[in-house]
Amino acid sequence: MLKRGDFVLIFYEGKKYLVSVREGQFHTHKDHFDLAELEGKKYGDVIFGKKGTPFFLLRPTIYDFLMRIERKTQIIYPKDIGYILLKLGVGEGKIVIECGCGSGALTTAFAFYVGSSGQVISYEKELAFIELAKANLKRLSLEERVTFKHREVSDLFDEEEVDAVFLDIKEPWELLKASYKALKPGHPLGILVPTTNQVIAILRELEKLPFVDTEVLEILVRNYKVNSERLRPEDQMIAHTGYLIFTRKIST
Amino acid sequence: MLKRGDFVLIFYEGKKYLVSVREGQFHTHKDHFDLAELEGKKYGDVIFGKKGTPFFLLRPTIYDFLMRIERKTQIIYPKDIGYILLKLGVGEGKIVIECGCGSGALTTAFAFYVGSSGQVISYEKELAFIELAKANLKRLSLEERVTFKHREVSDLFDEEEVDAVFLDIKEPWELLKASYKALKPGHPLGILVPTTNQVIAILRELEKLPFVDTEVLEILVRNYKVNSERLRPEDQMIAHTGYLIFTRKIST
Amino acid sequence: MLKRGDFVLIFYEGKKYLVSVREGQFHTHKDHFDLAELEGKKYGDVIFGKKGTPFFLLRPTIYDFLMRIERKTQIIYPKDIGYILLKLGVGEGKIVIECGCGSGALTTAFAFYVGSSGQVISYEKELAFIELAKANLKRLSLEERVTFKHREVSDLFDEEEVDAVFLDIKEPWELLKASYKALKPGHPLGILVPTTNQVIAILRELEKLPFVDTEVLEILVRNYKVNSERLRPEDQMIAHTGYLIFTRKIST
Amino acid sequence: MLKRGDFVLIFYEGKKYLVSVREGQFHTHKDHFDLAELEGKKYGDVIFGKKGTPFFLLRPTIYDFLMRIERKTQIIYPKDIGYILLKLGVGEGKIVIECGCGSGALTTAFAFYVGSSGQVISYEKELAFIELAKANLKRLSLEERVTFKHREVSDLFDEEEVDAVFLDIKEPWELLKASYKALKPGHPLGILVPTTNQVIAILRELEKLPFVDTEVLEILVRNYKVNSERLRPEDQMIAHTGYLIFTRKIST
Repeated sequence: MLKRGDFVLIFYEGKKYLVSVREGQFHTHKDHFDLAELEGKKYGDVIFGKKGTPFFLLRPTIYDFLMRIERKTQIIYPKDIGYILLKLGVGEGKIVIECGCGSGALTTAFAFYVGSSGQVISYEKELAFIELAKANLKRLSLEERVTFKHREVSDLFDEEEVDAVFLDIKEPWELLKASYKALKPGHPLGILVPTTNQVIAILRELEKLPFVDTEVLEILVRNYKVNSERLRPEDQMIAHTGYLIFTRKIST
Repeated sequence: MLKRGDFVLIFYEGKKYLVSVREGQFHTHKDHFDLAELEGKKYGDVIFGKKGTPFFLLRPTIYDFLMRIERKTQIIYPKDIGYILLKLGVGEGKIVIECGCGSGALTTAFAFYVGSSGQVISYEKELAFIELAKANLKRLSLEERVTFKHREVSDLFDEEEVDAVFLDIKEPWELLKASYKALKPGHPLGILVPTTNQVIAILRELEKLPFVDTEVLEILVRNYKVNSERLRPEDQMIAHTGYLIFTRKIST
Repeated sequence: MLKRGDFVLIFYEGKKYLVSVREGQFHTHKDHFDLAELEGKKYGDVIFGKKGTPFFLLRPTIYDFLMRIERKTQIIYPKDIGYILLKLGVGEGKIVIECGCGSGALTTAFAFYVGSSGQVISYEKELAFIELAKANLKRLSLEERVTFKHREVSDLFDEEEVDAVFLDIKEPWELLKASYKALKPGHPLGILVPTTNQVIAILRELEKLPFVDTEVLEILVRNYKVNSERLRPEDQMIAHTGYLIFTRKIST
Repeated sequence: MLKRGDFVLIFYEGKKYLVSVREGQFHTHKDHFDLAELEGKKYGDVIFGKKGTPFFLLRPTIYDFLMRIERKTQIIYPKDIGYILLKLGVGEGKIVIECGCGSGALTTAFAFYVGSSGQVISYEKELAFIELAKANLKRLSLEERVTFKHREVSDLFDEEEVDAVFLDIKEPWELLKASYKALKPGHPLGILVPTTNQVIAILRELEKLPFVDTEVLEILVRNYKVNSERLRPEDQMIAHTGYLIFTRKIST
């Protein structure tokens, strides 16, 4: 039974909206209903707008929260997040450093997957981003799993012996040594950058440091039109979000 | 400190091997060492072969276990697994049905991410696959999180009110009704199939059932040659593993 | 020296416009000039708008004509056209049947590449499309190389012993026998369709006929942002135009 | 009717071989026949090997010649060649400079498409490549359309007012000025390079020169398994051949 504060994914004519059960109105260009009416309904139910439009109430998954995050920046997308989680081994009880939280999409995924026994430390120089990321975490009650550090890192992270580090900043080559020092030996570092120039700069710097097993890759998702009589890809797709780089620390 | 039974990812000349600390020898075409020598070493260390070759000892992440699973079937790859986890909302405490465990790659990922409070129920008609999947789960000590059911499902799963269902079988359209009955309302169903004919058959059947928000997509990973002076994609890539279909149950 | 009727590709702030030297005005949201001013200019020159904006005068190539064709239909794109030309061996002196001229993009390319000694026969049931295709051919003075046949083909093309056939119609499987009869033995047939259902229907029919060496493929073009300091793919790309099918007639 | 010297594309169990009618034997691991037997046969015919295997005789198109060129280098593939032809406007009567002939695949396509009234000038510093390219041109009787210049260009091409220039060399940024001088104003330059570092170096140099409308792109071909009951992409594909760059000269 839905109660105040619960999140619902409204599905309507092929579009989806993430809302919470609260005072106020949900309206599209075509119809509307009071969000308070959601109280007492269940996931899977339909609610009818004032003009009779059916709105389906779906259970948002972590994917839906990530895709509908409040954002002031380019976010990291689920296609990349899912892969990052697996490559970095982010799971129950892990301690992970993230540098550059942006709007908090990856922060949210890390917090979700380290579980109640894990921990995320997020370094971010813009206070506005920290506040946004915190608000996004709150939706999923994950804010206690993340420690934000509001500062620009130039030399060292505070932590040592962490399970994984992820860099989502403009000049990640500046923080490869700091990442090295923070990581447990044999453990992974991940990086996301949008341009080939940045990939080149990172690879040049990595060659000088005791990291091995470096990989560079990109992930593409191609959606299809959902029509059993005319199955074909969508006309347009997202062609690029960023290049992912993974590498691992070895001892010296 | 590595001890008997621990898993180590050996990195050597750009290749990686997943081994456990035990009696026996690790050998490549070029050099070799005794696996027992790993005992007492640490992740990040290097071990030198009898001819002086350096072998780096890395901490395998869940990604490495998934990529190096013992297999008798086509496996589901991390590019798809990461996305499936997020779309289905697989996380701490969730109850998930999988139908068709194959070699157990997705089973392993599900078990890893539902955490100690979650549960995976895996239906599989081939006993050999169940045994293989169990062996793969054991490597990560995840076998207790999975209940295998050795039978062909034709009509109903035993469970009701599960958080997610995933089908990896030849004729998944046969089990859409069973999936519907097993799912909590508003919750997701995922399917993987290799051919467009299967996608078409699934979409035709889904149109008749109370599911909404159906998506069809494919995920492509493109690796780059790791060379800062000659950055370019690899010559070859995996062009296809399968089509992913996601949809959600609504109440009737 | 440009004279009345010549075509010019105007390049301005990253955009391109195909115009002819004639009475009238060229205007963008920002500036404008009289098209008659183009007379006497040369390709490569710059012309300044009334407000001082520089407009560069480029020589349109066949690519530019194909991309800027007057259209009432989905057109076939250069990425596909270039490949079709080579696969079908369209070159000097060849005789090619096309069924379904649409707006005439492929017709134009065929006419351009068969040369003055070649011939294109184009079957089309919609008179409006024939007129549009003719207008597009006229721009390149290629109209005499194409014979249009305004009718729906159900059984036979008029021609025999042609070098290549291309089908761009909704139900190409209906014309595989007709294509077979029209082709020289050992020569190629090409087909473009947007959906997998159509590909499947074509393959089913081809299996019954004396064709060999059937191929199915799709071509993707990925554009990059032209910035030497931030080289990266464009954010969006065209994900799909159609599936290309090629096969070859053998004698019975 | 096939006669001595004619080329035939042999199709057999999904594979294709380009052969000429001559003395000698055609043999696969399974069967064989005398090539002289091809004399008097026709395209589309079948020839039976000594053990009864059917070999189909197909008419090779320009695509087949390009794919089966004798090679000592990485060749340019039809997916790229078709696009290059259209972008550069290579057609009847055009004069085109190519720098770096490699094995002669693009040279052959240029020679084929400029027609009997056009001309290709090919600069190449390696004599062995010129000889190979000539041999490949001879197969299609195109050798008279190409003038080879055996030298390294550092400063100037001999020609002026050509319709298009294409560079397929290691450091094409060295020849942008020479290309500029050789081209007619408003006309196109094309370049192929395998690495992003080269693309970056070219863009940096182009920014200083009077070229406009620069584009960078890559073309991907994805083949499908030809099976009407199991339509799906091939497992593997070619992920990269090179980046294509196009730009156009403006007057100064």
